Amino acid sequence: MAGSFYKGCFLSMFDYKTKTFIVTKNKRVGVLYRLIQLSIIGYIIGWVFLSEKGYQETDEAIQSSIITKLKGVSMTNTTESGVLVWGPEDYVIPPQGEAVLFVVTNFLETPNQKLGHCAEVRRQNTGSFRIMSGRCLGKDENSTGTCEVYGWCPIERKSEPQGPLLSNAENFTIYIKNFIHFPKFTFSKSNVFETTDNSYLRKCRFEEGLHPYCPIFRLGDITRLAGYNFQDMATFGGSIGIMIEWYCDLDKGNSNCHPQYRFTRMDVSITKQTIAEGFNFRHTRYFKNAAGESYRSLFKVYGIRFNIMVHGKAGKFSIIPTIVNVASGMTLIGGGALFCDMVLLYLMKKGDSYRERKFQRFKMKKSEDNGVEDRKGATEHDNLTS
Amino acid sequence: MAGSFYKGCFLSMFDYKTKTFIVTKNKRVGVLYRLIQLSIIGYIIGWVFLSEKGYQETDEAIQSSIITKLKGVSMTNTTESGVLVWGPEDYVIPPQGEAVLFVVTNFLETPNQKLGHCAEVRRQNTGSFRIMSGRCLGKDENSTGTCEVYGWCPIERKSEPQGPLLSNAENFTIYIKNFIHFPKFTFSKSNVFETTDNSYLRKCRFEEGLHPYCPIFRLGDITRLAGYNFQDMATFGGSIGIMIEWYCDLDKGNSNCHPQYRFTRMDVSITKQTIAEGFNFRHTRYFKNAAGESYRSLFKVYGIRFNIMVHGKAGKFSIIPTIVNVASGMTLIGGGALFCDMVLLYLMKKGDSYRERKFQRFKMKKSEDNGVEDRKGATEHDNLTS
Amino acid sequence: MAGSFYKGCFLSMFDYKTKTFIVTKNKRVGVLYRLIQLSIIGYIIGWVFLSEKGYQETDEAIQSSIITKLKGVSMTNTTESGVLVWGPEDYVIPPQGEAVLFVVTNFLETPNQKLGHCAEVRRQNTGSFRIMSGRCLGKDENSTGTCEVYGWCPIERKSEPQGPLLSNAENFTIYIKNFIHFPKFTFSKSNVFETTDNSYLRKCRFEEGLHPYCPIFRLGDITRLAGYNFQDMATFGGSIGIMIEWYCDLDKGNSNCHPQYRFTRMDVSITKQTIAEGFNFRHTRYFKNAAGESYRSLFKVYGIRFNIMVHGKAGKFSIIPTIVNVASGMTLIGGGALFCDMVLLYLMKKGDSYRERKFQRFKMKKSEDNGVEDRKGATEHDNLTS
Repeated sequence: MAGSFYKGCFLSMFDYKTKTFIVTKNKRVGVLYRLIQLSIIGYIIGWVFLSEKGYQETDEAIQSSIITKLKGVSMTNTTESGVLVWGPEDYVIPPQGEAVLFVVTNFLETPNQKLGHCAEVRRQNTGSFRIMSGRCLGKDENSTGTCEVYGWCPIERKSEPQGPLLSNAENFTIYIKNFIHFPKFTFSKSNVFETTDNSYLRKCRFEEGLHPYCPIFRLGDITRLAGYNFQDMATFGGSIGIMIEWYCDLDKGNSNCHPQYRFTRMDVSITKQTIAEGFNFRHTRYFKNAAGESYRSLFKVYGIRFNIMVHGKAGKFSIIPTIVNVASGMTLIGGGALFCDMVLLYLMKKGDSYRERKFQRFKMKKSEDNGVEDRKGATEHDNLTS
Repeated sequence: MAGSFYKGCFLSMFDYKTKTFIVTKNKRVGVLYRLIQLSIIGYIIGWVFLSEKGYQETDEAIQSSIITKLKGVSMTNTTESGVLVWGPEDYVIPPQGEAVLFVVTNFLETPNQKLGHCAEVRRQNTGSFRIMSGRCLGKDENSTGTCEVYGWCPIERKSEPQGPLLSNAENFTIYIKNFIHFPKFTFSKSNVFETTDNSYLRKCRFEEGLHPYCPIFRLGDITRLAGYNFQDMATFGGSIGIMIEWYCDLDKGNSNCHPQYRFTRMDVSITKQTIAEGFNFRHTRYFKNAAGESYRSLFKVYGIRFNIMVHGKAGKFSIIPTIVNVASGMTLIGGGALFCDMVLLYLMKKGDSYRERKFQRFKMKKSEDNGVEDRKGATEHDNLTS
Repeated sequence: MAGSFYKGCFLSMFDYKTKTFIVTKNKRVGVLYRLIQLSIIGYIIGWVFLSEKGYQETDEAIQSSIITKLKGVSMTNTTESGVLVWGPEDYVIPPQGEAVLFVVTNFLETPNQKLGHCAEVRRQNTGSFRIMSGRCLGKDENSTGTCEVYGWCPIERKSEPQGPLLSNAENFTIYIKNFIHFPKFTFSKSNVFETTDNSYLRKCRFEEGLHPYCPIFRLGDITRLAGYNFQDMATFGGSIGIMIEWYCDLDKGNSNCHPQYRFTRMDVSITKQTIAEGFNFRHTRYFKNAAGESYRSLFKVYGIRFNIMVHGKAGKFSIIPTIVNVASGMTLIGGGALFCDMVLLYLMKKGDSYRERKFQRFKMKKSEDNGVEDRKGATEHDNLTS
């Protein structure tokens, strides 16, 4: 007996339960419901799947390695420094080809500085670069007079730069080698155009439209694409961001994954206040004379700082986001049905009769003789209680 | 005939099908269901939407550019080096103002090193910095004796630093310029406070609470906010992480997007073992004497390494995450109904009669005379088979 | 009257509405439905939850700080430079221990360069490093003859490197200190193995399998693990990426969060074209003679550039992704029922009678006497209209 009970339970597991519906020939609600269905399906296919690629798993944690190399040579002739020839070993700081690099376009050398006492005209509101020795020609320390300082003398000449000294820096070229890796898809690529023509990489120059995949950039082109004039920037210095963007749809094949280059100036504030503009820093070269005494050359260098940033996103078909998006779309269609029900129940004139049919009243009977509810009886109960 | 058939099919497309429900006046289950509904709606509105901002699309792939500039000057007086004046061009390594920078707070100079043979007391377990010339005063190479080495002589003095030599490094200031960009929203901003008062940026100092958006930081303040004493750190060196956090709710307007600064010490292991503490490295200055022979100054510099890291997340209303979250909430409410059904079916005393009503039995008839199932007949069939 | 109406409305809020189902004893559809249910549940538990950890919130915005320190010493003897002893202060560029560092393995010194005129054999297609003075021995400027140039003389000797000069660079060791932070979970960790045995960190060497958490790496091991021979790479230089990967399941406890190291060569293009291979750059040391004239040593250094990249993802249980994934699973099961309905309606022989039962026709009555629809009457209407 117990065996047949469990057998019955087991068999009833394979009974198929399905929801019941009532069909109403109300054209207006029917059309409304189909419209809602269509717009949801359109939204899912058009926006989620085609435009936003909701069926793809994405990887934004791009790993990237940058190597840069500059070419070009310039000659300067100044009173302090005499004739100088500048190669990449001099004008690229640091010289080892990193992703953040500074190209000297203008400089002010203060040669043969020695430690000692010298006079300095005091400026207000600036961090003095000397140690005060205490003797001032002005009335008190807060006045704007001349003070004797202990430090590296002679002190740096105060001068506003008059145009860049490395005037042909505009024609220097920068070769950017970028290697990227998307760890989630174990996909790697380089921005160096793969070509059988070996001389292409020696001769090509990046040009939007014409040579979008050539990794060699003329400095003047970079500032122009960022919207600024090179000679203007070169005088006081500045900062340029080079964004390399890798948006790769790996479903379309790996050869369609190409970098895009964008150039932005980074030291100009939005309201164009000049306080943040310009870029310079000081560095030194130390020497010793025959007597073992130290002296140095102080270089205040102005120039353009290039900051190469890599950003990317790779997408590839994956079952999980597809299911999540399809499932939420299906639920939305259910929500559309809910909305149509509301219209039918509350806005249509005959909503009440519809409501009675949709929501059948159910009341537990006093005595459960056979456990089977008689449908006609239920309707009668409803009549009695309503 | 066929035409009217397809016309019928087409018209029936606009029939509106809706699920049927039975209504039971069981207060306990009714209240339970409303409670579940309310808590799910509360969770969706309160947690998913208000707290976690589930209606927003987010961009965590922040692009960032950092420029740093230090100010301050210090004077040291040691036996080896004599009097030295340290400006930013000397104590900032590298000098070009990067996001990772090292500020010298202590140093040990070994001047006038020349290549040659000199004696070195051998230490165990350390990578020797010399080439062994083979002649040792101890018994064998593994003993702890004095060996003759070939290298830069005189060798560096072994000494534990006694307090920082650049004692006022605490008062140096660092000006951090950070430019960020959220590519998904094409939103850019700088941490430099936009003000009409130009002198503000010359005079202000970062202070939590008082001046949270001033981008100029006193080094002593930075170590204090990281929880360490500057003079302690300055002696042996250390590493400080400066996190700039940009959490931007772009729905609230762009001017509400402000950076937050956090400071952490990075060279202290969690269990405070001293092996990982301190930070120093060696660098050299090379000279040549009149005879063309090379000699050098070896600097072992201790100091604080600042590592400026930028982290950010921007959020903006987007339809897709909103829909995904609303849809999963709606499904949850459906799950709540499922749970109430279980309670009604299995826990309530009158579950059986309820079950019969909810799940109507259906059995295919032997002969389908008119394709319409008589509802009363179905109940009779059920009675016969049960 | 109105009071009792609102009271009725309020009470009916706690009526419990539940969907009605019809049960069909069709074994085939029943089994099909259970199979679909089982496979969806299996997919959700097995793939979404166990394999992809869909119940976890993840943080991929890892913050990381790197400090590196090299050890080892090498001696070289060349015609130009004589005997030289190389310590980390010389062969690591930059010396301050950053995440991107260059280790010199080979070099070509051009000592005692002075500014002046010298002869240069012209090469085609290369950016000349000199300023032409205009006097060429060839017929015209485009010929491949010898020209007089103004620049740093003597010019660098043209020579292909014959094996690395710092031949034991293979045995140098690099100590990598990596500190990471997951901001979403405020979780921090260091890759330095926490041990009570202080001498472990002085003696250990990284070995896959044996010592996977020792942070000290032999350079020769790194190139070997990247799949290349050190001596080959050292001659012309190259670029190695060291990926530190932190995949942390924070539900399993913080002590289970360990870094994994991966090594890749980065300067070899996929099609093995040699144009992108090798890595070298030039740097200089400037000197002044007793007369104050500048001269310099030009170093062309070949070597290996290590680029330490940190990538990571931490996961921790969170209610939102759990709910999104469960909800989409539940909707999927609903979709399975839809599919079974289709089978029952369109593929089974008796689909029509099933359809009539599932979708009951409903038509508004002409007169609504009591607002209650008689079920039997509805069936009669159906009979009349069909």
